[in-house]
Amino acid sequence: MATCRARLFCGLNIRGLHCSVNKCTPLSAVRKLHTNGQKSRAELPRLSNLVLRQRRSDCQFSRSMSGFVGKDKDIVFRQLLEYKSFTYSYLVADPDTKEAILIDPVIETVPRDSKIVKDLGLNLKYAINTHVHADHITGTGFLKKQFPMCKSAISAASKAGADIKLKEGDKLTFGKYELEVRSTPGHTNGCITYVWHEKEMAFTGDALLVRGCGRTDFQEGSSETLYNSVHNKIFSLPPNYTLYPAHDYTGQTSTTVEEEKMMNPRLTKSKEEFVKIMKELNLPYPKQIDKALPANLVCGLYNLPEEFSKS
Amino acid sequence: MATCRARLFCGLNIRGLHCSVNKCTPLSAVRKLHTNGQKSRAELPRLSNLVLRQRRSDCQFSRSMSGFVGKDKDIVFRQLLEYKSFTYSYLVADPDTKEAILIDPVIETVPRDSKIVKDLGLNLKYAINTHVHADHITGTGFLKKQFPMCKSAISAASKAGADIKLKEGDKLTFGKYELEVRSTPGHTNGCITYVWHEKEMAFTGDALLVRGCGRTDFQEGSSETLYNSVHNKIFSLPPNYTLYPAHDYTGQTSTTVEEEKMMNPRLTKSKEEFVKIMKELNLPYPKQIDKALPANLVCGLYNLPEEFSKS
Repeated sequence: MATCRARLFCGLNIRGLHCSVNKCTPLSAVRKLHTNGQKSRAELPRLSNLVLRQRRSDCQFSRSMSGFVGKDKDIVFRQLLEYKSFTYSYLVADPDTKEAILIDPVIETVPRDSKIVKDLGLNLKYAINTHVHADHITGTGFLKKQFPMCKSAISAASKAGADIKLKEGDKLTFGKYELEVRSTPGHTNGCITYVWHEKEMAFTGDALLVRGCGRTDFQEGSSETLYNSVHNKIFSLPPNYTLYPAHDYTGQTSTTVEEEKMMNPRLTKSKEEFVKIMKELNLPYPKQIDKALPANLVCGLYNLPEEFSKS
Repeated sequence: MATCRARLFCGLNIRGLHCSVNKCTPLSAVRKLHTNGQKSRAELPRLSNLVLRQRRSDCQFSRSMSGFVGKDKDIVFRQLLEYKSFTYSYLVADPDTKEAILIDPVIETVPRDSKIVKDLGLNLKYAINTHVHADHITGTGFLKKQFPMCKSAISAASKAGADIKLKEGDKLTFGKYELEVRSTPGHTNGCITYVWHEKEMAFTGDALLVRGCGRTDFQEGSSETLYNSVHNKIFSLPPNYTLYPAHDYTGQTSTTVEEEKMMNPRLTKSKEEFVKIMKELNLPYPKQIDKALPANLVCGLYNLPEEFSKS
């Protein structure tokens, strides 16, 4: 910052101003630095104007700073990937009120996610999970340390600790928007799909993946229950809703209700066939489950694993 | 398919029909199979109606089958990740005409990408590169084998083989949309940024990454040239344009012009500082460069590496 300011006060690089003064820079400080910089006072009004213009631009900043694409740029939307467990987290926000929700954060990527939240000038209202993950430790507890006003949320059925215990039909509001809670058990008893109706999207966790679904062979998993959940709660959404899963192991990032209804190789089958397919998967024991499950049952409430508790 | 049809003709699972008859299934074949299945002819009109209804649904299918989110669902947009080289490929299409473009495909993920193109009922018009990649082999040649009507494209300045050699200001049309070619050299001499003005997005290749940029220490790289390219051709776009890079090593998937103009740790600096930063990066020799570069200089024209030429 010092270097940038030096550039500003040397008046050498006006383009550089765009990055050289942030909204926290009071004009008095600019004036002081300016004086310290021994520049001619005659230039001050021009510089002050530039700073003020920059401030106005800052006010509009998060309005347009959106990961969302297309004409409808009235939301912030970011899909974020954690490479070790192939987990997708999702940051959604209302750019007007700056209220944000982070869905399925991973503890290792909390520093990255916190930086994005701060960079975009957002207030993290909720850090929420679709379920008690078995393959990674949730970032909700760690996020609550970074953002003390942030509340953690998970389903009551999950029996995990969190500030808010959700049930079918609950709504999580952020600014003018809301996420609807749909109970979609089967992968675990407490699985939730969060539906953002205004933007025609849903975050399906491990209930439904791109051309796949979460496993059902541990953590109270039930293939029959999962089949019913997907058909009754996800496939019943309008066909053009975009679905964002908690994982994808093939590098795909999204799908739609219509695609999965027509092309999901498991869930287009009859329930009996689906149960047979799931039974015959013979998947290996999840690598991080012994560490992840106990942590995730309490992590929504600050109880961080030792390696993260000092941060 | 046989199983699905069997279900259909047994009349046991009408829901199963949704996946059991595709638009290529002629009614005569249905009738024949039906007869072979020795079902009562009385059921034929009902089954035929279901098939016709399914066909109508197929016609509307790719219209709503979009990775694009929000109210404005008049495009297909898919971000796709190749995990070995952390490369993002992008599928864009007009759902009305079904014309599609695949940007920066990777040879290893061509089977996945081809399947998506076919699943969505798209016609792949172009397979294009932002530049001659040094970290992976392009999928354009392999895609041309899968989709014989598909043309490969890359910049003329890259000196690589391709059906179409692009230059500044060229347009690649797909349906009612077009991508504008902006020459953004610096990482390599032939780097291109593709701008989709209608949807306020740009595909920046390695010229600009999320809070970073491509290296400039090989392949005719020039830090001064890259700095000018980014400032003149990318930062000059409207601030709310979403930028999609060719890579991200931290799990981020997009950024915006405004964010990078304000927060890119390298490109918000002066040109002199930027050159110094790039000079001091001391990056390791790219792992796949010796294999990737020679292949990528010809791969746009069918000349596939041996392991892929048999597919």
